[in-house]
Amino acid sequence: MSAPDRLEAPGGRRWPVAVLGATGAVGQTFVRLLARHPWFELCGLAASERSAGRLYRDAARWLEGDMPAAVAYQEVVPCDPAVVRAPIVFSALDAAAAQEIEPAFARAGAVVLSNARSFRMEPDVPLLVPEINPAHLSLLDAQRRLRGWDGAIVTNPNCSTAVLTMALAPLHQAFGVRGLFVATMQAVSGAGYPGVPSLDILGNVIPFIGGEEEKIETETLKILGRADGDTISAAQMAISAHTNRVAVEHGHTVCVSIALERRASVGDALEVIQQWRGAPDARGLPSSPPLPLAYSDAADRPQPRRDAGAGGGMTVTVGRLRPDPVLHLRLVAMGHNTIRGAAGASLLNAELMAARGMLPDP
Amino acid sequence: MSAPDRLEAPGGRRWPVAVLGATGAVGQTFVRLLARHPWFELCGLAASERSAGRLYRDAARWLEGDMPAAVAYQEVVPCDPAVVRAPIVFSALDAAAAQEIEPAFARAGAVVLSNARSFRMEPDVPLLVPEINPAHLSLLDAQRRLRGWDGAIVTNPNCSTAVLTMALAPLHQAFGVRGLFVATMQAVSGAGYPGVPSLDILGNVIPFIGGEEEKIETETLKILGRADGDTISAAQMAISAHTNRVAVEHGHTVCVSIALERRASVGDALEVIQQWRGAPDARGLPSSPPLPLAYSDAADRPQPRRDAGAGGGMTVTVGRLRPDPVLHLRLVAMGHNTIRGAAGASLLNAELMAARGMLPDP
Amino acid sequence: MSAPDRLEAPGGRRWPVAVLGATGAVGQTFVRLLARHPWFELCGLAASERSAGRLYRDAARWLEGDMPAAVAYQEVVPCDPAVVRAPIVFSALDAAAAQEIEPAFARAGAVVLSNARSFRMEPDVPLLVPEINPAHLSLLDAQRRLRGWDGAIVTNPNCSTAVLTMALAPLHQAFGVRGLFVATMQAVSGAGYPGVPSLDILGNVIPFIGGEEEKIETETLKILGRADGDTISAAQMAISAHTNRVAVEHGHTVCVSIALERRASVGDALEVIQQWRGAPDARGLPSSPPLPLAYSDAADRPQPRRDAGAGGGMTVTVGRLRPDPVLHLRLVAMGHNTIRGAAGASLLNAELMAARGMLPDP
Amino acid sequence: MSAPDRLEAPGGRRWPVAVLGATGAVGQTFVRLLARHPWFELCGLAASERSAGRLYRDAARWLEGDMPAAVAYQEVVPCDPAVVRAPIVFSALDAAAAQEIEPAFARAGAVVLSNARSFRMEPDVPLLVPEINPAHLSLLDAQRRLRGWDGAIVTNPNCSTAVLTMALAPLHQAFGVRGLFVATMQAVSGAGYPGVPSLDILGNVIPFIGGEEEKIETETLKILGRADGDTISAAQMAISAHTNRVAVEHGHTVCVSIALERRASVGDALEVIQQWRGAPDARGLPSSPPLPLAYSDAADRPQPRRDAGAGGGMTVTVGRLRPDPVLHLRLVAMGHNTIRGAAGASLLNAELMAARGMLPDP
Repeated sequence: MSAPDRLEAPGGRRWPVAVLGATGAVGQTFVRLLARHPWFELCGLAASERSAGRLYRDAARWLEGDMPAAVAYQEVVPCDPAVVRAPIVFSALDAAAAQEIEPAFARAGAVVLSNARSFRMEPDVPLLVPEINPAHLSLLDAQRRLRGWDGAIVTNPNCSTAVLTMALAPLHQAFGVRGLFVATMQAVSGAGYPGVPSLDILGNVIPFIGGEEEKIETETLKILGRADGDTISAAQMAISAHTNRVAVEHGHTVCVSIALERRASVGDALEVIQQWRGAPDARGLPSSPPLPLAYSDAADRPQPRRDAGAGGGMTVTVGRLRPDPVLHLRLVAMGHNTIRGAAGASLLNAELMAARGMLPDP
Repeated sequence: MSAPDRLEAPGGRRWPVAVLGATGAVGQTFVRLLARHPWFELCGLAASERSAGRLYRDAARWLEGDMPAAVAYQEVVPCDPAVVRAPIVFSALDAAAAQEIEPAFARAGAVVLSNARSFRMEPDVPLLVPEINPAHLSLLDAQRRLRGWDGAIVTNPNCSTAVLTMALAPLHQAFGVRGLFVATMQAVSGAGYPGVPSLDILGNVIPFIGGEEEKIETETLKILGRADGDTISAAQMAISAHTNRVAVEHGHTVCVSIALERRASVGDALEVIQQWRGAPDARGLPSSPPLPLAYSDAADRPQPRRDAGAGGGMTVTVGRLRPDPVLHLRLVAMGHNTIRGAAGASLLNAELMAARGMLPDP
Repeated sequence: MSAPDRLEAPGGRRWPVAVLGATGAVGQTFVRLLARHPWFELCGLAASERSAGRLYRDAARWLEGDMPAAVAYQEVVPCDPAVVRAPIVFSALDAAAAQEIEPAFARAGAVVLSNARSFRMEPDVPLLVPEINPAHLSLLDAQRRLRGWDGAIVTNPNCSTAVLTMALAPLHQAFGVRGLFVATMQAVSGAGYPGVPSLDILGNVIPFIGGEEEKIETETLKILGRADGDTISAAQMAISAHTNRVAVEHGHTVCVSIALERRASVGDALEVIQQWRGAPDARGLPSSPPLPLAYSDAADRPQPRRDAGAGGGMTVTVGRLRPDPVLHLRLVAMGHNTIRGAAGASLLNAELMAARGMLPDP
Repeated sequence: MSAPDRLEAPGGRRWPVAVLGATGAVGQTFVRLLARHPWFELCGLAASERSAGRLYRDAARWLEGDMPAAVAYQEVVPCDPAVVRAPIVFSALDAAAAQEIEPAFARAGAVVLSNARSFRMEPDVPLLVPEINPAHLSLLDAQRRLRGWDGAIVTNPNCSTAVLTMALAPLHQAFGVRGLFVATMQAVSGAGYPGVPSLDILGNVIPFIGGEEEKIETETLKILGRADGDTISAAQMAISAHTNRVAVEHGHTVCVSIALERRASVGDALEVIQQWRGAPDARGLPSSPPLPLAYSDAADRPQPRRDAGAGGGMTVTVGRLRPDPVLHLRLVAMGHNTIRGAAGASLLNAELMAARGMLPDP
């Protein structure tokens, strides 16, 4: 897709979209990324009853840079499909709220691109990463049939899983991954706002993030699984995850040891990583980075503060590929947790659907 | 050993001791720990030529609390056994300097308790952790015979290895450890002073520490090995280490996945950890903590800022013991890197030798 | 007062005391400082209705080191004088709660040592710093008469004001202070727990703390004022305060420029600061530090991480005394905000009252 | 100047430029800002003898983002005008090196835009801020005459002074500033690389920066002074500065209390600040931000992490304008120290000279 295409929506008209949970940290990232989006036009800011009825500038404590002028004086509305009429909604809701609200929107005909964990592991809900498993969108037929929805729910992975699977995909495709040891060092923005109290994290490490290890150990299998008509055959691999919170603003760092089905040298693995461009469908979309996966040959990279912004936050950077004394290979992967690991992922999912003609007409 | 014993040196007289490399970060920790030591009397501060001849208060940029008054106006002397006549010397030298200077002191008759890596892996040099392998002191006969020294060199582990091996020892003794994944998050004080530039670590993670992974992968085998007269039979285990620097002042956190020779439930492993007190020789020494290894049952501990000071910095805290989906068990260990992982470790080694009558008369 | 005296309560029996608001950050500091107090015996932990009825270990997220074993299994009770019968209560309540609860306790006969701001500026309530204004306790006669209380309320200053006034007191007593510029850099623990979100303060400065500038500009005048029977003649000085939050755990740093009534050279001022020991009544109490005010002649001190613990957190450290191009003198002062600036201050107030026989019999 | 103008150099050809001290932190900022500059073409990277002869990618530890590909394989050359032939050189040298090297370049005919302090206070050297004192360029006649140089030296202010003077300029122009109290909280990048050791600044404040208070107290007077043919009449104002280092990456925050010649209400001062656009000459240059000075009406802004990037790092943000109880007004100013306070400032100076036809033909 050439550059001019990126500036114009596939059908020539931009889709009106809304953000559910627009006042929180991920919601704000959606708002920021949508502020100048070529295909989507942000026309609805929805949040909890507590925020509804207030101006966005009063309801949201804006966290980064300046709030886009266009949204500051919009009124926040409740997360109700009778009020929010956009055919495409991005959900930054927490799991409890998403559990009720997202199906209501799907039932009302909206396509819900969700960052919540509530439906990720449902057998008929795509857990989509456009570069890795665009074929998983085939689940939507079953989803509509089973649930009787006019709309749909499409999810993206948990933030650390998003970074991990990007690094694994080329190796899994080339050699098969059958086992993993994963240790994460995750940024505080992954916990939202107010999130992690400063007294807990200044000069400290918290070696626990509730539910995070389970997400890595299950979501990875589905993402790397094979679509088989109405179902996904999960990848078969044993995963051991250790998750930690560190005093970093943005960027989750993941140390990974990998066991392969078919042994590969570091050289072979490096070539596979460096040549990987992801699925063709995922290229050239408005949020696609020049490279979905970049390899740094510096001895001490990737680093969150220096690499999280690569590709506008959509590039995952890998480094330190080397042999593993217990399994086969070791590496470090790092990516931006609120962009590649949250709002940017949902956006890319929507763009893939748009490019494939899977969104309702604007 | 009862409390009064701790206040008095075994032979009734305190040993004069000196610190080599006294101006650096670890050297200062030696000075601080020795300032009120019941068995050792600090009477020599040696450092590089650059510092020699200056007052300690001028040569050392003191890093924590206030410099003990007794040392402030002592003159720093060169690291020369002709000048530094103490029979016991603690070495905080860097590896290059230690390579030449430590043997010179051993040759001149001093017992060198070294924190440097230079001689740790020499077959005739004990890599000593009193709670784990006091029998390794038997190497000293061979060392003296082979090298013709009147004195000796006894080393302690690298800082992250010190924390790791304390957590492993009870499990290795009870069930045999045969494989390990280790991911560390290490404090900046481990890099000395000036050490890590703030521009590199504020809000960042550096996923690389030069030589550190190799140290963990080799030193662990020697420490957990069995003394067999003049040699050590290294433990047999495969180790995969990932080492990272984080924005923490003191305290190395280590995530570990463990494969055992003889399977053990989490309950059995927990009991073994909680009941472990280390070798009897190592108890009741002046630097021995009440518990060498403590288990925290809080969901999110150990944490460096909250637990590094446990047992005066000599207790390693373990938490989050749980099954491992790839190997057998997972846990998190954390300990103070400049105390348990450096100066305190050397001190405890000297105290063990003192208690065993292995130090020259004061 | 000699050392043995410090180990025994004035009347030979320890006072039973309770902490109101015991689960928060300042409440925990009270609990920690009281755990081994020679005069006071902690026998009541009170907090909001939400916490009442739970064990302390379940109700409080313990922030530093390990929770004292003696309190872990105590039940938290409501802040009700019918339930909390201790004659001495330390209040770590927030201002809204203190407004109602503290008078209820005073009415019921308890002496309330309060860290809350609610009554600090009341004309009949001492805003007490034992080293500076012990005579202000004379207000209590008026307080009891006016309010008809059997008990009393005695307050300590806001945390940054506590640090500032300790640095000013010797200069004010010697030369008269008539004007001040104050710029603070305040630790996150001053905002309690959860307090400052990490996303707000990591790698950042927040140049605003609600109400803090007003507290500095008013409390300072009262603290440095002169007791005149039933009233305090406030000190006359113009104060301009700038307050900032920085990424520090404990320790408020305060830059001060000072205009004096009677000009003094830096040398004279230094002598006054170095010789100041505070009011004789305040010496030798259990929480009195060896020096209430210490002067550091290092070019770059005081620093919060290196000096906040001086004197067990009760010593304020001053440095960089130098001429001021606009007013007369400049200096930097730094002290521990949750000890000297909160719980330790309340404790010292109670100890002063105990030593003067102003506490009800135990 | 309209947008197209900004893309093309005034004479239609770009000037070849070089950076002296190109490997350090400020040098790298020059390289980054010059990588896509419309008027200047970076064709020389010079540094100390130690770096000369190496490729830039080997000589510079790149600190932010990725090194521009165009410079990675350029050879670093010595700071010698016989080797570096560009007619325009940007100097990021330290003061000692600048003292010798900058005059050598000026003598050889180059225009030196210097960030070093060495010549800032020389009476015949402009200390230039294009928005504030473009008329100071008139000093260059005297400079050439006095020193016999074909080239010239033009300096920009010290980083904290750069931020301060931008905030003062509109008030000084409108009401006259006659006194100042300034307390800074400065980012670690201001100390270069490796700069501040992490052990000194993590969780800490260092209340001292060598020479910084003197720079603020002298440079401000010259910058705000009036050009009078060959000389500058320094502004007359008393300044008291307190400078502090804090754990921030980029962005110096400055708390300021201000005494005015002619009293002004907060409302009047606010209007003056909000309407100020700086000198017309300084507008529309390639590095000019949309607003040189922005006012934030949020209660807790400006903040370094959220505002330092405003206007590409060239906008200084002011907030919290309020009355001052001792002088007249109080405010907080914040700006990017390595852009507005260093490399960006030098660039803007060069652009102003280019627009005025004061640069030698390319």
